[in-house]
Amino acid sequence: MNPAAPTLADLDADLLAPFRLVRGELEQVEAELLAGGKSRMAAITLIGRHLQQSGGKRIRAALVLLAGRLAGCEPGARVRLAAIVEMIHAATLIHDDIIDEAPTRRGRPSANARWGNPMCVLAGDWLYMQAFRLALGERHFGVLDALIVLTQDMVEGELLQLEMQQRVVTAAEHLELVERKTARLFEVSAQLGAMAAGQPPAAIAALGEFGRHLGRAFQMVDDLLDFTAAEAALGKPVGNDLREGKMTLPAIYAHQASDAAGRALLEQVMREGGYAQVGFEQVQALVASTGGLEQARQESRQQAALALAALQALPASPEREALARLPALVVERSQ
Amino acid sequence: MNPAAPTLADLDADLLAPFRLVRGELEQVEAELLAGGKSRMAAITLIGRHLQQSGGKRIRAALVLLAGRLAGCEPGARVRLAAIVEMIHAATLIHDDIIDEAPTRRGRPSANARWGNPMCVLAGDWLYMQAFRLALGERHFGVLDALIVLTQDMVEGELLQLEMQQRVVTAAEHLELVERKTARLFEVSAQLGAMAAGQPPAAIAALGEFGRHLGRAFQMVDDLLDFTAAEAALGKPVGNDLREGKMTLPAIYAHQASDAAGRALLEQVMREGGYAQVGFEQVQALVASTGGLEQARQESRQQAALALAALQALPASPEREALARLPALVVERSQ
Repeated sequence: MNPAAPTLADLDADLLAPFRLVRGELEQVEAELLAGGKSRMAAITLIGRHLQQSGGKRIRAALVLLAGRLAGCEPGARVRLAAIVEMIHAATLIHDDIIDEAPTRRGRPSANARWGNPMCVLAGDWLYMQAFRLALGERHFGVLDALIVLTQDMVEGELLQLEMQQRVVTAAEHLELVERKTARLFEVSAQLGAMAAGQPPAAIAALGEFGRHLGRAFQMVDDLLDFTAAEAALGKPVGNDLREGKMTLPAIYAHQASDAAGRALLEQVMREGGYAQVGFEQVQALVASTGGLEQARQESRQQAALALAALQALPASPEREALARLPALVVERSQ
Repeated sequence: MNPAAPTLADLDADLLAPFRLVRGELEQVEAELLAGGKSRMAAITLIGRHLQQSGGKRIRAALVLLAGRLAGCEPGARVRLAAIVEMIHAATLIHDDIIDEAPTRRGRPSANARWGNPMCVLAGDWLYMQAFRLALGERHFGVLDALIVLTQDMVEGELLQLEMQQRVVTAAEHLELVERKTARLFEVSAQLGAMAAGQPPAAIAALGEFGRHLGRAFQMVDDLLDFTAAEAALGKPVGNDLREGKMTLPAIYAHQASDAAGRALLEQVMREGGYAQVGFEQVQALVASTGGLEQARQESRQQAALALAALQALPASPEREALARLPALVVERSQ
């Protein structure tokens, strides 16, 4: 386990109190991932385990578990559904890293850097199939429909990102990406247990709304941290998005608020694919002075507030209280 | 449409009489593929269409249709199932071409050569998801189970191929590959209609056995043609497998029957990845003189005979007669 990037199950800070309810189940999810990730082909097992051990935060799993408990989904099913969601997430990461030619992921060599693209194309394919195979075991068409449509949306999102790379984009374009890359997965994560438990459409819709806004906030903060975090705390290089030609909200707003010189500066980094001509500190100063950073932070807080509001449609319970702490946790995190 | 590689629907030779029964349905499959391959992302639609238009033989679709008719599967369902199988096949081809870094496919630029690897990773993912999405529409868990397990087997097969590349392999190792790369897909293609129609296990098993042997024969002949065909008829370069470091039955048997000099010759081509040191004619002479070619041809005929025998478990019908002509068609083809 990478000590720089602990899983939620490892932590005990007050901040993480909401996860106490499902701590035991989060450990079961890890066991499920270990068992479910075993292929007859050793390389696939290795690649899956590499990703599992690189310390994802498991916030999606926690969301499935907490929302599933709230919805009265039985424990075994919610653990399996949480593992399925993490498996789909892992499959997208493996293929995304091939596409981005990423040398590292969460501070460790990426799977493609270590095993090569051909192996990783297949490992990602296998993990997708394995996730659907486990999902099929639930014998629930609604759950399967949700997962397939979701996965297709995410693939289309990655393609959208490919087409938006290395150019100036609008906030609306970027938000469409946030929706497909992150918000939809959070949305479905919050809904799966309620679907499996046969909850009425209104409850499923409320949980979905919560998850979607939480996912937006999560991605927006991720994008912010790429400008503001210390590399050591983040466990990965900062300034990465712009270097890779990806404009996120802070850069988009800064670009819109800048004069020609400021705009040229941001575009230069994307064109160059690095910070040799324009220093990262210059970019940081620009997104701060133009208010781009603050505007993006406001947007993330607004999404967190909307997530919280969505919960009001659900009856009060310890699980709802735990879910209600997630938006603040997501917005205030520093890694 | 590429005139060098017509689809079954285009042909009217006596050889293709078995397909007359489903000619109209094969055209419906094309329409289904065109409609089902449409994505909101234009690039995905283009890549799918590129593959669709490159003239696959649609033998898998024909197998689904004929076996589905025989099993009393309703026309709409068998057309959709045939399209699903062709879509899964197309998705594997797109990802295989990335892995093999193939410059061409069926005599045209491969999708990865034309659109690049990142786009093709995503287009393959999307096509897999789309196939499962359409399959989900059938609301039949047995069909879904079969398709998911099949797809995973095929992905593992491609990985196996990756691990076997550039080295001397045994016939048993290669046959395991044939099973996963081709025979399983033919097996499931022959079964889907019967599953959807609720046929008893014995009928599903007999159709599966037919399909599996037919698939083995098909792949073995494919491997033979790589040594014996004229490039113009095949629509792609010959001698490809050995060049790519893939030993198929003719080379495996020739290697086993050769003296040290003959073995060195085959290994040299794999090491070099080309025919500069050792001419392709030398390899052709070796596989012929050692009897490797003939032995491989015998194996393919044996599989065709086993396919035919499997049909005897099914009641006589025009569809069974049509299916009974497929093994010979597969074994005698020259492209």
